Amino acid sequence: MRIALDAMGGDRAPQVPVQGALLAAHEGVEVLLVGEEARLREELARHRASLPIHHAPDWIRMAEHATEVRRRRESSIMVAIDLLKRGEVGAVVSMGHTGATMAAALFALGRVKGVERPALLVEFPSQRGRTLLLDGGANADCRPGFLVQFAAMGLAYAEALGLPEAKVGLLSIGEEEGKGNALVLETYPLLRAAFGGRFYGNVEGRDVFLGTVEVVVTDGFTGNVVLKLAEGEAKVLLGWIKEALASSPLARLGALLVRGALRRVKERVDPAQYGAMPLLGVEGAVFVGHGAADALAVKNALLRAKRLVEGGLMDRVRQSLAALHV
Amino acid sequence: MRIALDAMGGDRAPQVPVQGALLAAHEGVEVLLVGEEARLREELARHRASLPIHHAPDWIRMAEHATEVRRRRESSIMVAIDLLKRGEVGAVVSMGHTGATMAAALFALGRVKGVERPALLVEFPSQRGRTLLLDGGANADCRPGFLVQFAAMGLAYAEALGLPEAKVGLLSIGEEEGKGNALVLETYPLLRAAFGGRFYGNVEGRDVFLGTVEVVVTDGFTGNVVLKLAEGEAKVLLGWIKEALASSPLARLGALLVRGALRRVKERVDPAQYGAMPLLGVEGAVFVGHGAADALAVKNALLRAKRLVEGGLMDRVRQSLAALHV
Repeated sequence: MRIALDAMGGDRAPQVPVQGALLAAHEGVEVLLVGEEARLREELARHRASLPIHHAPDWIRMAEHATEVRRRRESSIMVAIDLLKRGEVGAVVSMGHTGATMAAALFALGRVKGVERPALLVEFPSQRGRTLLLDGGANADCRPGFLVQFAAMGLAYAEALGLPEAKVGLLSIGEEEGKGNALVLETYPLLRAAFGGRFYGNVEGRDVFLGTVEVVVTDGFTGNVVLKLAEGEAKVLLGWIKEALASSPLARLGALLVRGALRRVKERVDPAQYGAMPLLGVEGAVFVGHGAADALAVKNALLRAKRLVEGGLMDRVRQSLAALHV
Repeated sequence: MRIALDAMGGDRAPQVPVQGALLAAHEGVEVLLVGEEARLREELARHRASLPIHHAPDWIRMAEHATEVRRRRESSIMVAIDLLKRGEVGAVVSMGHTGATMAAALFALGRVKGVERPALLVEFPSQRGRTLLLDGGANADCRPGFLVQFAAMGLAYAEALGLPEAKVGLLSIGEEEGKGNALVLETYPLLRAAFGGRFYGNVEGRDVFLGTVEVVVTDGFTGNVVLKLAEGEAKVLLGWIKEALASSPLARLGALLVRGALRRVKERVDPAQYGAMPLLGVEGAVFVGHGAADALAVKNALLRAKRLVEGGLMDRVRQSLAALHV
């Protein structure tokens, strides 16, 4: 299975995508670079390496409007999505314009049957492994039915990752049924009816890092706030620790000895570990990364995409949604 | 100015409240303990110390319903709030039942003119000092007007803390006007009209810890998720660092040298530093702490309450709200 990488997407494209693609290729991923052929050849030449290229003369700039994709059929993301639609690749990864990637996927691929709104799935490191949260920001305003569909997609994703026993929790501000905002109060009984024992009930903000459940569902506004807060807090906390370790000669000496141990903690919370977020609910495996992503994130996104598609992600999502409507 | 402490509130009452009250008294706070006189005398005797006591025979247990306060007029929180209403104390602090404290305050004190819904204000440590966020959880569902009032109260609180130049940001999922959910889109122009240049515009989750603005407003659902996520993440991250520092003989040796430096980071993110959250918008200075709070948190809550009330908190809140309706 080949994976198309939008090589023109991201703050430092095509350098970073090409670098990440080479790292992934080295670990056995068949990558197809999509973008301006001449620039990509040049970039590959700098690495004295070779990868297949599919030419796309145009690309969507970060400052442009997402809806541009509708009329820019030769943009790298539209060309990549089109390859996916025609079955020439098994997944698309882009570190470019998130909105444009979502718009392209929705426009060209359409939705999985039973999905009203596709959602972005975000991964957090947790005490028990990882927590999958959706929606990470695709839908600022949600209706209860959307969250039920997010839960179905999140559980399907967990299964494709090898977590068949995953449970889903509803993000709220109290554990008891009856605690929450209007959306949560309406959603709770629907999740109970749809998933029975696989629905854990309400979870709170702290449960994301504690890992109380594998899958957390929330609206895309709350989910995106959570995502950015978690990243910001990790960055600031680790910065304070770095400062503290340089604050005295004794601390600096100790810092030399603990450097390796602390690096492992830093890696554990580094968003690059996850690489990119899947856009679940569109008819194809599409992964969207951060524009500021580094080559490691690109590599991990490609590896993750390969693993999930080989784990039957798309069929699992379709089945999970179909089961909602039996 | 005396401050009434609900000495029966909290998971380990009256031991912890009495201990915290003694620490605060040592730093110059005039504390009045409110609760069952015999138990409080006994507790004080164990410390061979003395503090004034106002007897209250009853108290609201953590598992009871908040509305119990309406018929339990002799409960410690109702008696304390009543002392505040009669002007016998300048503030009330409780580490007890949050809902009961809010209900008692709202019921007995009423709202500041111009306030539709009181809000809880939460403090976060930030790269630039601190970030004040409201609503921390008093109102799960909000209308745009509530958020404008929260902003007025947050700015008044910042002034009472000695931050007259504070700016307010609207928590959203993109910096540009036009990004956000329906509530945010409606609230943005109202904040601009009400606060002009003191309204910074939208801020994102990461800005809470970066300290981009001093005051952040959001609905009580998002605010409470943020609060609990931030606490949970700090706890889990510091736990991982602790584990990492014990992971090898070399790391354990280094850990001895950096222990003091790391303790300062831990203190910086410890919620006990702030002690308790003010309930802003009721006609009196009421502070609500965490049931699991320790004596340090009780002490800090009492010190913070004293400083704020002496800084003219209540008048500033009233003026700030009045200015909204000129």
